Amino acid sequence: MNAVIEQLKRHRSIRKYKPDPLNEEQLLAIVQSAQAASTSSNVQAYSVIAVTDPDKKRQLAALAANQAYIEECPVFLVWCADLNRLQYAASLEEETRVPDSTEIFIIATVDTALAAQNAVIAAESLGLGIVYIGGIRDNPADVSRLLELPKYVYPVFGMCVGYPDQEPTSRPRLPVETVLHRDRYSAGSFADGIERYNGELRQFALTRAGGKRDTTYSKEMANRLGVRKRDHMRAFLREKGFDLE
Amino acid sequence: MNAVIEQLKRHRSIRKYKPDPLNEEQLLAIVQSAQAASTSSNVQAYSVIAVTDPDKKRQLAALAANQAYIEECPVFLVWCADLNRLQYAASLEEETRVPDSTEIFIIATVDTALAAQNAVIAAESLGLGIVYIGGIRDNPADVSRLLELPKYVYPVFGMCVGYPDQEPTSRPRLPVETVLHRDRYSAGSFADGIERYNGELRQFALTRAGGKRDTTYSKEMANRLGVRKRDHMRAFLREKGFDLE
Repeated sequence: MNAVIEQLKRHRSIRKYKPDPLNEEQLLAIVQSAQAASTSSNVQAYSVIAVTDPDKKRQLAALAANQAYIEECPVFLVWCADLNRLQYAASLEEETRVPDSTEIFIIATVDTALAAQNAVIAAESLGLGIVYIGGIRDNPADVSRLLELPKYVYPVFGMCVGYPDQEPTSRPRLPVETVLHRDRYSAGSFADGIERYNGELRQFALTRAGGKRDTTYSKEMANRLGVRKRDHMRAFLREKGFDLE
Repeated sequence: MNAVIEQLKRHRSIRKYKPDPLNEEQLLAIVQSAQAASTSSNVQAYSVIAVTDPDKKRQLAALAANQAYIEECPVFLVWCADLNRLQYAASLEEETRVPDSTEIFIIATVDTALAAQNAVIAAESLGLGIVYIGGIRDNPADVSRLLELPKYVYPVFGMCVGYPDQEPTSRPRLPVETVLHRDRYSAGSFADGIERYNGELRQFALTRAGGKRDTTYSKEMANRLGVRKRDHMRAFLREKGFDLE
């Protein structure tokens, strides 16, 4: 349709990187592109920690399910929801405290994600590859200590950035009619759409994993919902000043 | 730096639209671009409701602080975190229930935001403009009823899409050094950076509002943190099956 949309549709996560570093100009272009994303009432409730220190990357890899590409990528970005800087700015005017509401947690989390996704688009436009790392929520308190995150800051996800040393194909997505609804939510397309997608994803998994992995979307979702994960998040967030009231 | 990054940096929210509709091809390109965004373990935990029905747009505008552009834009997209479709897919394999964890709430909310931001980039590449509408969280239960959102689905934000009928300038953002940290979080740049930004934002607000609005980032953040907003969100989410445990 146009070059931008083609780029968006070409996205695939990269899990093997060349050692080549990013230069400062690239890093700034990526973060300034992130900053150009929409933000709720201009609060800009996020920070990003660019980790290039090899020892810290190694420790982060160990904290996030030993994903080797965290250590191997030249820059590991840790995207944090950040109400601490807001609080600092507000304190220049008057004594305030950060609300303990679920609403402000949503605002900060969404602000972070919008900025990060702009960073992805910028990085990919520069020929770089990325992969999001939800695994930093496996041990969020340790990650926070390592990166010296203060109260009112929590690491939402990490992101490897670097030059791709692999060329994986894009994973197929759900049929668009199961995701896009018209004027009201309708589950009418789910039965057919998910059956079709199960077939596509099974074929894709068998091909990409060299015939060794037999799965479908339904099976993956059953596994996903069947196992509780990261039950520490609520207590961790409370500790960090996000009370979700 | 390149055309994509230039587009990202040109972003500005549009609050006045021409009546021209989007065609089906444009809408599909936008939603398929959204689907190409990263998603946690391929869960794809979101849906988008494309509202074109004039009466529903009018009602949504009324529910979201009477923002007229919701009614005026040709398509209003309501981006929803959606665990209902996952649950349906999983139920094809075995009996499961959606976890009541904060973790899965984060996953669904982040998935939704990443997809939505890709939609923004696609829309803007087509010459369209957008504005995010957090205001649908003013009355999330009414919005949910109007759009027939089932359990395990919650409206995260809305988004007006259409041809711009105004040409606002981009709002300046925080100095990059206050947002980008190196290897560890540091508040060292905040004092200087926020003072400088206060001046820039004051100038911008005075110019854009024709000299009538005198504000700074610090003042806006003090106002923002000083007022509790949308305290109904926790109870609403619980009602929808998001327990945040």
